[in-house]
Amino acid sequence: MTPQDIDAFFASRDALITDQYIELEFTFECAGDPRAAAAHLASEQSTAQWQRIGVAEDFRPQFAARVLSLVSSPRPAGFSVPVPAAPAGAVHACRAVIAHPHGNFGPRLPNLISAVLGEGVFFAPGIPLIRLEDIRFPASYLAAFEGPQFGVQGVRDQLQVYGRPLFFGVIKPNIGLPPEPFAQLGFEGWMGGLDVAKDDEMLADAPYSPLATRAALLGDARRRAEVATGVPKGYLANITDEVDALHALHDTAVAAGATMVMVNTMPVGLSGVRALRRHARVPLVTHFPFIASFSRLPLHGVHSRVITRLQRLAGADVIIMPGFGDRMMTPEHEVMENVQACLEPMGHLKPSLPVPGGSDSAATLEGVYRRIGSVDFGFVPGRGVFGHPMGPRGGAASLRQAWDAIAQGIPVREYAQQYAELRAALR
Amino acid sequence: MTPQDIDAFFASRDALITDQYIELEFTFECAGDPRAAAAHLASEQSTAQWQRIGVAEDFRPQFAARVLSLVSSPRPAGFSVPVPAAPAGAVHACRAVIAHPHGNFGPRLPNLISAVLGEGVFFAPGIPLIRLEDIRFPASYLAAFEGPQFGVQGVRDQLQVYGRPLFFGVIKPNIGLPPEPFAQLGFEGWMGGLDVAKDDEMLADAPYSPLATRAALLGDARRRAEVATGVPKGYLANITDEVDALHALHDTAVAAGATMVMVNTMPVGLSGVRALRRHARVPLVTHFPFIASFSRLPLHGVHSRVITRLQRLAGADVIIMPGFGDRMMTPEHEVMENVQACLEPMGHLKPSLPVPGGSDSAATLEGVYRRIGSVDFGFVPGRGVFGHPMGPRGGAASLRQAWDAIAQGIPVREYAQQYAELRAALR
Repeated sequence: MTPQDIDAFFASRDALITDQYIELEFTFECAGDPRAAAAHLASEQSTAQWQRIGVAEDFRPQFAARVLSLVSSPRPAGFSVPVPAAPAGAVHACRAVIAHPHGNFGPRLPNLISAVLGEGVFFAPGIPLIRLEDIRFPASYLAAFEGPQFGVQGVRDQLQVYGRPLFFGVIKPNIGLPPEPFAQLGFEGWMGGLDVAKDDEMLADAPYSPLATRAALLGDARRRAEVATGVPKGYLANITDEVDALHALHDTAVAAGATMVMVNTMPVGLSGVRALRRHARVPLVTHFPFIASFSRLPLHGVHSRVITRLQRLAGADVIIMPGFGDRMMTPEHEVMENVQACLEPMGHLKPSLPVPGGSDSAATLEGVYRRIGSVDFGFVPGRGVFGHPMGPRGGAASLRQAWDAIAQGIPVREYAQQYAELRAALR
Repeated sequence: MTPQDIDAFFASRDALITDQYIELEFTFECAGDPRAAAAHLASEQSTAQWQRIGVAEDFRPQFAARVLSLVSSPRPAGFSVPVPAAPAGAVHACRAVIAHPHGNFGPRLPNLISAVLGEGVFFAPGIPLIRLEDIRFPASYLAAFEGPQFGVQGVRDQLQVYGRPLFFGVIKPNIGLPPEPFAQLGFEGWMGGLDVAKDDEMLADAPYSPLATRAALLGDARRRAEVATGVPKGYLANITDEVDALHALHDTAVAAGATMVMVNTMPVGLSGVRALRRHARVPLVTHFPFIASFSRLPLHGVHSRVITRLQRLAGADVIIMPGFGDRMMTPEHEVMENVQACLEPMGHLKPSLPVPGGSDSAATLEGVYRRIGSVDFGFVPGRGVFGHPMGPRGGAASLRQAWDAIAQGIPVREYAQQYAELRAALR
C-alpha cells in the first residue's frame, strides 16, 4: 500500500456515521510498520481490492473498515510466542480499534463472524498473532436481533425465585445412566432444594437414554417434586444435536415436561442457536464446549466475552460459562467480563443470566456470590450435588443451607454446625 | 483419582472392540503426573462420575474413553508459553492417543464436537495447554455419514475437466460492486479460461448485491460464456447466511444459474453444512474463516486437518483452505496434511477437492502443483485474476498459459516470452 492508501484506512470517530459501524478491539503482534499492518487489517476484512482495473472508482468511502486508534510498542525480542511461518521484520505489540461498516454483511451471525473473525483478520499481511478482544454494536444493528426471549426476569418469573441465585444441578453420572434412575436423581435434587435439574452438556439423545423417554420421566418427576415442595421446579433438557433436528427435539422435550432447553453453542453454531430462539417456547440455555480452544491464550484468538456477547445476540436466556477457581483455568477478570457482558445494557436486548460453572459446591457459593456482587447468577454444581456423600438430596440441601447462611450474614462454616448436609459439603 | 482409577482409564488397543471407538491424538502440557493428567483427560471427556453415590456400579467398561498410549518428557523450564491461571506443579510435554466410545454421542457432529473438543478436553485437571492433533473414525461410524455428494470426480464431470487442476477465480472487488459489473467481470474471467468464477466468502446476500439478482446475472453470463467457449463454466455462489435461510438461498442461486454453492464452515457451523449437503443439488464448497483462531499456534487448540476431516464428513465436495506461501502463514506440512485429509481413503466417503488458496497467481501455480504432486486440486486466485493489469480475461488466460507450460514441460518463464498475459502475471 502507498502512504495515501494507508491513510485512507484510518479515520476519526467524528468523521463516521457511527450508527453504521460496529467497533472491534484487537490486540496483535506484527512484523514491519504497525500503521501499515493496521491498514491491511482494516482493508483485508472489508474491501481489499477497492476498484476494478482500469475503472476510476473507489469503494472505500462506503465499504472500508477504518482504524480509529492504534497504539504500538516495539518488542525487540520478537514475537512473544514462536509462530510457525511468521513474517520477518521488526516486531511491535499493538492495540487497535477498528470501525467496520455493518452494511457489508448485515444482521446475520455467520456473515458477521466471517467479516470480523475471517480470513481478513487472521491472514492480514504482517500479523501472525491477533486476538479479537471485544466487539460493540450500535443500536441500529442490535435492532435487527431478537435477543433473549425471557432474560433474567423471565427465568425468575418461570421459577418464582427472586432475591437469590438460581440453583442448577447437573445430574451425574452424566453418561451411561438409563432414564429411570436418572429421573430419580433429578427428583432427589429437586426435593433437596434445586431449582433446576439439568442434563450434562455431553448427554445427547442417546440409545441408552432417548430424549423422549428421559424428558417424559424427568417431566413426571418434576411435577411430583412441585407437588411435594409447593414451588416450581425446572428440568433443563440438553437437546444439542444436528441443527435440522433441534426444533423437533425442542418440541419433544417441552411436550414431555422440560421447562428449559440447552444447546452447546459452538458445536451447534451461533446461527443454529438463533434459529432455535425463534422457535423456542421455553428459556434457551447455552453451554461452552470448544470456546477455550481459541480463548485461553491471551496472544491469539478471541476473547471469550466476544462469544458471550454473540450468544446474547443470538438469544440465549441463560449462558453457562467457565467460572471461578483454579479448576477452570480462567482468570477472575475474564469470568467477570463475561458476567458483565450478560448483564450490562445492550440496546433493547434483555440480559442473559450468567452461570459461571465448574467444580462448584456449597463450599464455593459464597466466593462466587462475593465476586459477582449480585444475586443475578446461576450456580451449577455437578458432583457438588450428585456426588455429595448424602446423595443429591443432601447435596442440593447443602447449597440452600449455604445460601441461607450468606443471606443471614452468618459465616457458612458456623452455620454448618447445625446442618449435616452443609457440614459434609464443606469437608 | 486413586492409582486403580487411573489404571481404569488406560487400555491396550487389543483389549477394545476398535470399531466402537474413534481415536483422538492429543498433544498437551500438564502440571503434575502425566499419567494422572491423561487419565483425567479420558475421564472428563467421557464418564467423569462413573457411579451413583451408594450404588455398586461402574459405567467405565462401556462408556469410558481410554488412553491407548502416552509419551511424556519433562519441561524443567515450565510451560512453553505463559498461561493465565495455569495449575502449579512439574511440567511435562505429552502426546496421547485416546480411544473414545462413539456410542456416547452417536453420528451427530455437534455431539461429536462436544465430546472431543468440549469442557472435558479443555478443562481436564492439570492440562492448561492441549491441542487435538488428529481424529480417526472407524468404518462403523463413517457409515452413518453421507460425505461428499459429488466428490472430486463429480466436480470434474460437471465441468468436464480432467487431467489438470481446476481454475477458480474470486471476483474482485469483492465488496461493494453491484451485480451488473460484477457479472461482467465473471464473464471476462470465463472467457479468459476460468472454470469457475466465484463470490468472495465475505460477499453475502447484501442490499447492494442481492443474491437473487447476482445469481441471475452470473447465470446468464455463464451460459453466454459456455456458448462462446464451447465448454462448461461454473458459477459458485456464496450463500453463507443464517442456517435457516440456507436451503432457500441454495434454491434461489441454483434456479438462477449457480452451479455450486459455498458456505463458510465455522460461521455457519459444521452441522449447518451437513444439513445443506442433504438438501443440495450442486457441489457444496466450504471456506475457512475463523479456523486460524484455534489452529495457528502449535501448543493449544485444534490442528486444522481435524476441521478438514470434519468438513469432509459433513459432505463438502470442495474444501478451500489456507495454502502455500508466506502470505498465508501456514507451514507447508500443514497445508499438505490438509490436502491429504481431503484425498486419502476415508471409509465410503468420496474425496473432497482440496483448494489451498491465498494470494495466488500464474506465478505461484507451478509451486503449488509441485508440492501437491497431483492435478487433483483447485487453484483459486483473486487479485491474481481480477487484479491482473490486462483485466480478468488476461488474468485467467495467464493461469491457463502457465498450466500449458507446466503440462508441456516448458519452463513457465520461458513460455511467457510468447504470451503477454503470462508475462504480465510474472512481473
